[in-house]
Amino acid sequence: MKSERGILFILSGPSGVGKGTICKALRAQKLNIQYSVSATTRNPREGETNGVEYFFKTKDEFLKMIEQNELLEWAEYVGNYYGTPIEYVNQTLDEGRDVLLEIEVQGALQVKKSFPEGVFIFLTPPSLDELRSRIVGRGTETEDLINNRMSVAKEEIEMMKHYDYSVVNDEVESACDRIKSIITAEHCKVSHVQPKYEKMFRS
Amino acid sequence: MKSERGILFILSGPSGVGKGTICKALRAQKLNIQYSVSATTRNPREGETNGVEYFFKTKDEFLKMIEQNELLEWAEYVGNYYGTPIEYVNQTLDEGRDVLLEIEVQGALQVKKSFPEGVFIFLTPPSLDELRSRIVGRGTETEDLINNRMSVAKEEIEMMKHYDYSVVNDEVESACDRIKSIITAEHCKVSHVQPKYEKMFRS
Repeated sequence: MKSERGILFILSGPSGVGKGTICKALRAQKLNIQYSVSATTRNPREGETNGVEYFFKTKDEFLKMIEQNELLEWAEYVGNYYGTPIEYVNQTLDEGRDVLLEIEVQGALQVKKSFPEGVFIFLTPPSLDELRSRIVGRGTETEDLINNRMSVAKEEIEMMKHYDYSVVNDEVESACDRIKSIITAEHCKVSHVQPKYEKMFRS
Repeated sequence: MKSERGILFILSGPSGVGKGTICKALRAQKLNIQYSVSATTRNPREGETNGVEYFFKTKDEFLKMIEQNELLEWAEYVGNYYGTPIEYVNQTLDEGRDVLLEIEVQGALQVKKSFPEGVFIFLTPPSLDELRSRIVGRGTETEDLINNRMSVAKEEIEMMKHYDYSVVNDEVESACDRIKSIITAEHCKVSHVQPKYEKMFRS
């Protein structure tokens, strides 16, 4: 284990805010950060490799992981389970590398309970109007469905108070720059570097 | 008052670490940040303007400011008083502008007491050897004086634990980049932006 442990960053935010786009843009920049690999019970698609896109598990294996508290968070979507294995995250952090976890708001709140030392970043829409127009922009939703999604989004934005940072997704590049600044700043936190300096003094 | 108040950043660190150099480099970058103006009882030098380099005060005026708690911190050097007027800092923050205060470690600890919501950045030498060689590099000091300055510096580095961030001054440009990241990150803190979002919801 290196003297400076990596930091777990959790990127989350309401559905439709553009988490996936931001994450993709960050990946393209080849930062020194590891993207978390989820476990899932869904079948691998063509070209997917175990341990790269996902850790593929049987339902029994997955349920056992839940039982043994081996997941930072988990959820069921359309009959399949998805979750974040603690072991993979901890191993990567112990190697001194940061981990970025992109995740829904409910999952992030679960992670907060089991991993409070993580750095929680909330991606916010520039305004509620803008979020509505992004949802409407997808074209196929009825008025009822749009209103429903907006009220879910509002509830999710209320969850922002449980996060450390709030990054406005006004423009992909600016939002990425803010996230990179947060990563740099977190590495400068006294609580993070203190052990290194104590070592310097002892020597 | 704007909905987002400015943030007070305090840049400090042991003598010899290069606070002045970093501050000068930051100023040259024309960031949207106001550099704090100190009050002093020393006489203005040629070309110095009241309210620009310093607020020039008589000794009586200065002592009255101390008495009425109008200074964030103050100290006496070689018969003159120096201090940071609270009013100037608060006015600038209320206008929504950040303030950067470059200051000695003892002064920063005073500011911490009266202004705990400030963001305290500690500038550290890359190593104690490096700090020693910077002090030796000035040429004129005796071995005793160097050892004395080193032990003061060590005591000051111990004060790092009272700060929020620690920035290594390995290279001026990298150190400035880290400080700029800290400024950006602090503006993304949920505690800082929360009032804006509450307003969004009320409307």
